This record gives sequence, structure tokens and C-alpha cells, in this order.
Amino acid sequence: MPTKDAQICKVHFLPNDLTVEVAAGTTILDAARKAGVYINSICGGDGICGKCKVILDKGRADTPPTTLLRREEIQRNYLLACESRVLSDLQILIPEESRLEGGKILLDEDAHRFGTLAAEGDESQFKLDPLVKKVFLDLHSPSVDENLADKEQVFYAIHTKVGVPLDQMQMGYRILRQLPQTLRESQWQVTATVAHRGSTAEVVEIEKGDRSRYNLGVAVDVGTTTVVAHLIDLGNGKTIDAEATYNAQMKYGEDYIQRIMYATENDALDVMQKSITDDVNGLIAKLVQRNHLALNDVTSVVCSGNTAMMHFLLGLDPSRIRREPYVPTANFIPAIRAAEAGITISGRGLLYCLPSVAAYVGSDITAGAVAIRLDKAEEMSLFIDIGTNGEVVLGHKDWMVCCSASAGPAFEGSGVRHGMRAAGGAIEKLVITKDLDVEYKTIGDKRARGVCGSGLLDCIAWLFRRGVIDRAGKFQRDVKTSRLRQTDEGLEFVLVKRADAGIDSDIVITQADIANLIRSKAAIYAAASILIESMHVPMDSIQKVYMAGGFGNYLDIQSAITIGMLPDLPLERIKFVGNTAVAGARMALLSRDAFETISAVAGKMTYFDLMGNSRYMEEFVQANFLPHTNTEEFPTVKRLLAGGGIEN
Amino acid sequence: MPTKDAQICKVHFLPNDLTVEVAAGTTILDAARKAGVYINSICGGDGICGKCKVILDKGRADTPPTTLLRREEIQRNYLLACESRVLSDLQILIPEESRLEGGKILLDEDAHRFGTLAAEGDESQFKLDPLVKKVFLDLHSPSVDENLADKEQVFYAIHTKVGVPLDQMQMGYRILRQLPQTLRESQWQVTATVAHRGSTAEVVEIEKGDRSRYNLGVAVDVGTTTVVAHLIDLGNGKTIDAEATYNAQMKYGEDYIQRIMYATENDALDVMQKSITDDVNGLIAKLVQRNHLALNDVTSVVCSGNTAMMHFLLGLDPSRIRREPYVPTANFIPAIRAAEAGITISGRGLLYCLPSVAAYVGSDITAGAVAIRLDKAEEMSLFIDIGTNGEVVLGHKDWMVCCSASAGPAFEGSGVRHGMRAAGGAIEKLVITKDLDVEYKTIGDKRARGVCGSGLLDCIAWLFRRGVIDRAGKFQRDVKTSRLRQTDEGLEFVLVKRADAGIDSDIVITQADIANLIRSKAAIYAAASILIESMHVPMDSIQKVYMAGGFGNYLDIQSAITIGMLPDLPLERIKFVGNTAVAGARMALLSRDAFETISAVAGKMTYFDLMGNSRYMEEFVQANFLPHTNTEEFPTVKRLLAGGGIEN
Repeated sequence: MPTKDAQICKVHFLPNDLTVEVAAGTTILDAARKAGVYINSICGGDGICGKCKVILDKGRADTPPTTLLRREEIQRNYLLACESRVLSDLQILIPEESRLEGGKILLDEDAHRFGTLAAEGDESQFKLDPLVKKVFLDLHSPSVDENLADKEQVFYAIHTKVGVPLDQMQMGYRILRQLPQTLRESQWQVTATVAHRGSTAEVVEIEKGDRSRYNLGVAVDVGTTTVVAHLIDLGNGKTIDAEATYNAQMKYGEDYIQRIMYATENDALDVMQKSITDDVNGLIAKLVQRNHLALNDVTSVVCSGNTAMMHFLLGLDPSRIRREPYVPTANFIPAIRAAEAGITISGRGLLYCLPSVAAYVGSDITAGAVAIRLDKAEEMSLFIDIGTNGEVVLGHKDWMVCCSASAGPAFEGSGVRHGMRAAGGAIEKLVITKDLDVEYKTIGDKRARGVCGSGLLDCIAWLFRRGVIDRAGKFQRDVKTSRLRQTDEGLEFVLVKRADAGIDSDIVITQADIANLIRSKAAIYAAASILIESMHVPMDSIQKVYMAGGFGNYLDIQSAITIGMLPDLPLERIKFVGNTAVAGARMALLSRDAFETISAVAGKMTYFDLMGNSRYMEEFVQANFLPHTNTEEFPTVKRLLAGGGIEN
Repeated sequence: MPTKDAQICKVHFLPNDLTVEVAAGTTILDAARKAGVYINSICGGDGICGKCKVILDKGRADTPPTTLLRREEIQRNYLLACESRVLSDLQILIPEESRLEGGKILLDEDAHRFGTLAAEGDESQFKLDPLVKKVFLDLHSPSVDENLADKEQVFYAIHTKVGVPLDQMQMGYRILRQLPQTLRESQWQVTATVAHRGSTAEVVEIEKGDRSRYNLGVAVDVGTTTVVAHLIDLGNGKTIDAEATYNAQMKYGEDYIQRIMYATENDALDVMQKSITDDVNGLIAKLVQRNHLALNDVTSVVCSGNTAMMHFLLGLDPSRIRREPYVPTANFIPAIRAAEAGITISGRGLLYCLPSVAAYVGSDITAGAVAIRLDKAEEMSLFIDIGTNGEVVLGHKDWMVCCSASAGPAFEGSGVRHGMRAAGGAIEKLVITKDLDVEYKTIGDKRARGVCGSGLLDCIAWLFRRGVIDRAGKFQRDVKTSRLRQTDEGLEFVLVKRADAGIDSDIVITQADIANLIRSKAAIYAAASILIESMHVPMDSIQKVYMAGGFGNYLDIQSAITIGMLPDLPLERIKFVGNTAVAGARMALLSRDAFETISAVAGKMTYFDLMGNSRYMEEFVQANFLPHTNTEEFPTVKRLLAGGGIEN
């Protein structure tokens, strides 16, 4: 621990070539943060994830024993930055796998798929009518015959141009005070920023000249593990760019229940809020800078996310979300000035948080449901959104029931040795051949650095199909391949040799990784299964299944069925729809009608509580096999297995 | 002028017995203000009104020559506090006529007439439905079966209790953040303050327990010369108390055009705003303290006033009000937090400024028109509001035309030697007998201290009827009475002898006073006359005439006709309705329907410009006689005069 008179040590980070002075006793992770050096740390410094591996090049560090480093890593002076403390001046080398690429770091897969995102086609069903508009007003200099008061002339012009009823218009005091001068200095050519707020439209800004083309919005999916932001041109509805980051709150706990406990026990709600607003602000700033745009032209941010994350974002006390009877402060959150919550955009820009259903069904789901237009669906549909929690919605335009299961962040790359987010170098598609060779494709076609959700799903499916793992997910020692090998921690399967990899080690999948991933899929399948059973909906009557999540671009639906994550329905009924939380947020940003539709869905969706369901745990246990204990539920997988292997 | 190293002098004020230290060179008026001693000063310290007479008891003062003190006053050591500067330690005696009574200072006549105000009867036509409500919510502690989010439970309860549609409700961010704690600490017994703002209803406060009975509002008539405030219990609609003060902006000019010039030329908008908000804050604080209530329970203020005063109150630039094409910043001003404009009530309380029609027709008129329910009038009606400006409205429920004339503040007591506001000791009713004796009644039946508007009106009418003045308003030297006497400044008529007066001199009316009052009445009559003529409305078709203003309690309609202020219509068609500006503000405070009706009237009323009317000046000149050059317009007055005198 650093003490008052602790020795000051210099820590030099390579390859960044940045040096920082810290007190002896500081962790290397904290030193790196202080130096502005990014070290991958999914667990946030709790010595859990083992992602923050660094190499001690020079000097002495206090390094406690850990199970998260392999023997050969320890021999090569690897240590965990979060647990190791500075004892002298140090030189630290950050290996490739602990870095994140510079520049377009962590670009979400949606950035690649703007043209193909399933929800995007439907977006045209909503008229382009952004929540915050910039309206150019070509006013007239008053004369004796036309001497409307300044404010009234502005309101009337807005009414004429965009149809806002006069009696719904509002104007803030500061704007009103400056108005006469602004109008005259601009020769009566101004641009009004008009924000939809509940049942009113507020004129939040008056700019000189025609600034109507400079209206930007940001759609944000505030995920428990990953935060994704899309920068949108509100004038034409086009996405300019996208960016993602890990949620820095992970240092306070992997799931939001842990974080709520942390915030409550440490009276640290402010800290938690600052953490997530810093993340969002960082994304926005990066998007704006990278595209040479002005932060001041960002007039609105629409956020979707689970109920707890919305509470953290707004600094609302989330403590009751985790305690019976699970009461949020608010599901429907009024639009507020972004600045009030610490979100940095235009000074009078607005923050809209999309509405939740209940403590455990957030606006990622309401936004997602509208992104796939479940509100218009005629047929029985199933919507499965896989994040750190897995939520399942069953229904159609007339009713929707939703439940939530704790899936864990395995498919987001956490808790899996070489798991990573869907960023450059991630294996997003993978096939294991008959000869047990591995063919794969990485995002951006870079050298492989890890495996993202879709790749992990393929990996389990192919290990299972090729008989490398059994129905319980256990490696089969008798399989003849050098890729399967024994280590101190058990068996592991080599996906990519170090020589071919973009990191300084083999890329493997371990027995523990597989167990984690199977638990994740089991939680999701059990949730869907219990919900369908409880609603007395015959499985075969489900005409559409939408699978959403930040997996990667090429999610293989057949792999998802093979491992028993999705029900065994005809493939043509199942569609992978990507990140629907951010897609829904974008739609709301771009269309007041979409925003209202999401609110209507939030008001209509019914929460189904799995926690109080005795059958859920039973079903979860049964689903902890590939594809399931009851293979009758997976007839095509059963046939496949009976057929004895798959050609490739 | 005080300089940096000026000598410090002690000034001791009697009868208050208060001492203050000031630099030599400070005016006695400023010294008095610093000491918290009230000295009457209508002109605000410009050496114009001559109201701030004090007696130099001990010490030396620098006293410039003045025409505002009579010889005998100068001999008795009177000086004008605003013009005299401290040269040594002083003892100053404030004579009765320069004081205002302690305690209930300047109580407006409306305070006496709450039960009889004409508009009050009509008020029952509007449902009691205050703009800002306090709603007690008896909520339930959530259970697994009833686990609405906190905010949603509150909204739903408000909706159920007072019918606000759920989609129109808003809640500020700060309230939302505190909500869970407030609800639980209060055992789910809270009071919501719900404010009507445009098309939304905002929950501006949540208090613990049942505070619904503690909801106060203030209606303010922000007049050019006089500011009147009524403190209202919003729970039952009853007026608790009323208070008035002179508008301290008078020091910057008698009418608002002068003040706009002052503000523009000296870049002193902030100073002007502070001056009027100080006045309003002072009234509110006094009303609240005097009634042992809490400022924090004042949730709303509704202001009416002319367009310029509304601009000053809000710190909106009024400079274009006085320049063609006369464009206000806003006629319809959105509700704002009172604190934003510097009005001190409950921290999140609201300020509503009622809507104007144009630069020269303010919300005193729109509020007044609704106070007399012109919006429902079936018959042709004339509404005359006499303040520093005189406004005239002609019309009925289907159309209303309005004009404005600069009348000057004579009927408010300014520019008249012994004029005063309708406060305790003011002569409000007066008769001159055949023997040229004066009978009168004062407000509060105190010793007479001056004459208020209604008394002045009677005074002119009786001097005229008794032949003491001629049709031009000139004193007739041949009238046999000791009351008519010559002074240095001309003839004057003694109304009350010093021995009977509550001040230290005779109470008189001078030739100059009469000229001022006749100019005032002429401006008003000419405005009404031109408006009626221009609208081609036959005079006799006018079925109702409403005369409004802060005159006193017992305005004699016959006197108003006799002097030619009002048209000579049958008395039963004419009604004195008191201060309709504050009555309308009270109605708006108490009823959202009234507020909306005033807005509708403001949108409907047409402005008729007298300034551009060539006939107006002609008519004004003709009206500068008693009752008028054309006595045919005043048949009853003509008959009276032909009859040669009046019995009393």
C-alpha cells in the first residue's frame, strides 16, 4: 500500500514509451492508468480475468501467487498488472494481447454492417423526424405591418416549417433573453434547435445563419460489459461512424448486481456514474474528433441499456433493483439536459434514456423489440438478446412477455482465456475440419488476437461435432490431434499457433472456457424454454426467432442450434440481427415515432420472473449439455449426431 | 459627491431613532435608505416630485435652490432629502407627510374590497384549478405484486388524483434523484407540487408528509408607478393579504419610455431588472412574514403588467418597444423558474407572466379583460383601465380592439402636490358643499394625509360644479371663500386645514395639480372616443362600461362623467371594477382555465395604434376642458350646468 512517506518510483511503459512516477506499493495497473497507458483488464483489476498480463523488463515488483498465469508465462516474467505492486523503478513491456489497437480501437461489428443490419430495412417504416431537429428559419425584419414579437415570429416559423403545434412550443429563459440580439445580428437568418420533450417541443438553441446541416446525434448501447456508440447525421439519418469500449465499471464487478452492491456498500454511486459517463463521453469525443466534427453540433444522445445501467448513467440509486420487490427509481425517464448527467455534448443538448419494463428488463430490450418491429409482428415471435444478461421476449404485436437470465459475459469475451470483443483481429467465424485442422476468419482480416462471440459459438459447435468434446463439454483425451494438449490447468485445444497469431502466445480454448460458455448458453436456452412453456405456446408455432447481441458479423445460426443455445427450429425462421439495442436507440434518435413506439412497447411488455420459477433451475441443469439432456428437443442435432459426423 | 477619503458623518433620523454613518456628500435620501428609514419619494430621487421633504433639526447640509418647497417650509428648515447632501453629523426629522405608516404600509384598496371586487363574482365561473397544485399522495410500499417504479407510482397517483394525463407529466432530474429516499423516509406519504407549464405538467417538488394545505401563490400587478401583490391560499382560493409599493424604477423615469431610454443609454437593463424584482421580492417577503407563513410554501407567482414592465421584470431587452416598428421580445412568455428571474419564492417555484398583445398593450389589459369576463360578453362593452398609461378596450366576446394613451401618473398621486396612493389616510371620497365647505372620507378613517385618485376625481368634479374652476380648469378669483388663496406659485384651494390634517401642513389642490389631472382625463377620454369612432360603433350602443384602476374604494362614476373622463352614458351601464390587472392575475393563479382564457384573449385582441392617428391629438385638445369643448357629447352634464348648480 502506498503510505504518506512512500518511496517514489518511476515506471516506464513499453512500447508506449511513457513514464510515470508513483509511490512504491502502487499497482502496475494503477500506474498504467496514471500514465494513460491502456492495459486490457476486463475484471477491472480484481485479479479475476487474467487479461492484464504485462512483462516485467527491469526492476522489482511485489507479485502475489496467481492461478491466472501459466508456468511458461511466469518463466518469461509475465505478471498481472492489477495485482503486482511497484517496489522500485520499473520498466514494463505490454505484450500484444494486453494491448488494444490504437486508432479505431474496439470498433463494433455494427460499424461494418450498417448496410446489412436487419433492423435497418425496417427503419424506413419510421419517418425521418429526429427527436432533436435543427430548423433553418428565414425570418423577416419586422415592419409596422408585420410586427410580431420576436419569440412569436420564431415559433410561428417553426410551426410553419416542421408542424409543431404552437401551444406545444417552449423556449428557455436564456435563449429568450438573447433572442432579439441573435435575430438582428444574423439578419433574421437563424437555425433553431427544437427538442421533443414529452408533450412539448423546446427551442433549446438559436444559432446564427443556416446551421441546419450540422445536427449530430449519438445512439448509445450502455451495456454491462460493452458500451457501443454510433454517431449519426440527424439531417439524413446516415451513420457516420461507430465506436465501442469496455465498460470501465467492470472493475467494480462483472455483473451489475455486484456493481450495485459495490455502489451501495461504498456509497460510491457518484463514482459509478462518473465511470460510465466518462466512457460515454470518451466514445462521443473520439467519434467527433475522428470525423473532424464539432462536439457542439451534437444535439442529442439516446441511450438504451438495462435498468441498472440507466440508473448508474443518471446517478439514480439502483440499490432497490437487487432487493425484493425490485423497484427501480424510474422505468420511464424524462428527457434531461445531457450536461445535468455529465454527458458532454452541445451545452443545451439533450439526453434521452429509453424506457425499461422492470428492474431486470431494460431499454436494450424495448429498443431491440422495436428495432425488429415486434410491435408490428403478426406471427408468434421469439427475440433473444444475448449480453451479460440474456433476455428473451415472446409474443407479437398484441402481447409481449419478457424474462431475463444471468448469462455472464462469456460470449462478450470475458471469462474465456482468449475471448475478446468483436474488434479487429478477433476470430469471428471458425470451422474445425475432419482432420481437426482449424480454419477461421478474423475481423479486418488481421492476424488473430483472440476469439469473439460468434467464433466461440462456432468453436464449441465444431469441437462437439468433431467429437473433440462430449455432450458434457469435456475434452476427449483419446482424440488424435496435437492441438489437444495437457497443461497444469487441464486440457486445452489450440486454435491458432503462436507463429500465426497476432499475440505472443498460442490462441487456445480451455476446458474452463468451454464450461463457461456452456453455462451461458444453458442460461439463455432455459430462459427461452421456460417462458415458452409457461405461456403455453407450442414450440412449432413460433414463426420467427431473432437472435441479437454483439457477437461478430457472421454468426452461424446452425452452430447456435447445435450447441443448444437456440431452439431447433427451421433455419429460415431464425435470423441474427446484431446489436438491436443500439439499432433501436438509433431509430429513436432519428424518429419521434420510433421513440413513442418504444415507450408504448415498454408500457405493454409484461415481465415474467424466472427467479421465482422452480422449473428454471431444473431446465438450466438439463441445458448444461450439448445440445441438451433431452435430445428429442433437438431433432436435427440428434439426426446429425446419429449420422456420425459432418462433412466439411 | 462622496470621495475616497471623504469625512464620515452620522445621520440620526427621527422619529425612527435610527442612526447611520455615511460619507460627507451623500444625499439624505441615500442615507435614509441605508438606515432603512422610509422616505416618500415618488420620483425616486430626481428632485421632481417634491415628496421627500424632511426637516433639518441639527447639523449642516448642502441644499440647492428648489421650487418644490414653499417659503414657509424653507423657513421651517424643510429640505428635499433627495437633493440635500450631508456636510456634518445631522439630525433629521421626517415629517408626517413624508412618512408612510408602519406595518401595513401602502395597503392597496383591493385589500379592503376582496368581498366586493366585481371580478370576484365572476371568478366562480372558473373552476378552482391552480396553475401550481400540491397533491397529497398516499402511496403504498411496493410489494412483489405491486412493484411499479417509484416515479411511475408517483405519476400514476397524481393522474388518479387530479387527472393530469400520464403522457403530459414531467419530472426534473434533481427531484428524480432524490425520489426513492424521499418516498421511503416519508413512509410513502408525500406531497407533490405539480406545475402547469405549457402543454406539460411538471412535478417540481416532492415533500414528505401531507403538505397539500401549504400552497401559496402571489398575484402581482407590476405597474409603472405602483406594484401590487396579493397573497393567495391556492388550496381554497382565498386572498390572505395584499400589499403595494411604489415602483422603485421611478427614479429612472416617470413613464416606461423614459426608463427604456435610461436602460438602453446606460446599459442598465440589469439594474432595472434588479430594481423591479427587489420590489416584488419585498412585497412577497412582507406578505409572507406578516402572516407568519413560509416563503418556501409560495409555489407560484403570476404577474400582469404592461409589456415594458414584463420585459424589465425578466431582463428582456425592451429597447425595441419604443422604436418603430415596436417589436417586443415576446408577448407570450413561457413559464420559468422564479429563481431564474431573481424572484425569491420556493426554490423550484414558478413565475408566470401573463401574455401581452403588443408593445403598448400589456397583460394588465388581457388579464383585466378576462377579470371582467369580456371574453364572455354578449353586449358591446368598453373597458377603460387607468394607470400611468390609460388603455381602452372596445368589443365583446367575438372581437376586441385595444388602444393605449399616455395618461401620466396624476391619478396615482404623482405630479399632484398632495396626491398619494390609495393608502391609509388618503381622501378617497370628497364633496364640496354649497357653502364651499369640504366633506371627505379617508381610507381607514384616519386623519387626512393626502388625496388618492378617487378623491382627486371628486375634487375636480365638485370644484367645477360649484364654479370654483371654469371649463378650462382655471380657479375663479371672484369665488368668495377663504379656501381659495394666492401663493407664490399661483392659486390653490385648501381641502383640509393643517389643524385637521395628519400632516404638518394644509392639504391643498393647486392650479398645476388641476391641469395635470385634466390632461390625464383628456388623454383617456380621447383614446376611448377615437377608438369608438374608428370602429364605427354608435356611442349609445355601448351597453357596459368598466372603469378600472387603483383609485380608491368609492369611485364616483358621476364625478368621472362630470369631468369628462368617461362618456356620458346612463350610470347603470357603468361600473367601477378596481384593479383588474391584479384581479386577472389572481384568477390565472387560481385557475388554469382562466390562464388559458387570458392567453386566448391575448391572441385575439387587436391593437389599434393611436400614435399614428391624426384625429387623436385633435380630440385630446378638445377633451382638455370640463367636460369637453363639445358639451353635446355630455348632455347630462350640460343639463346640470344649465340648471345652475347642484344641491348637496
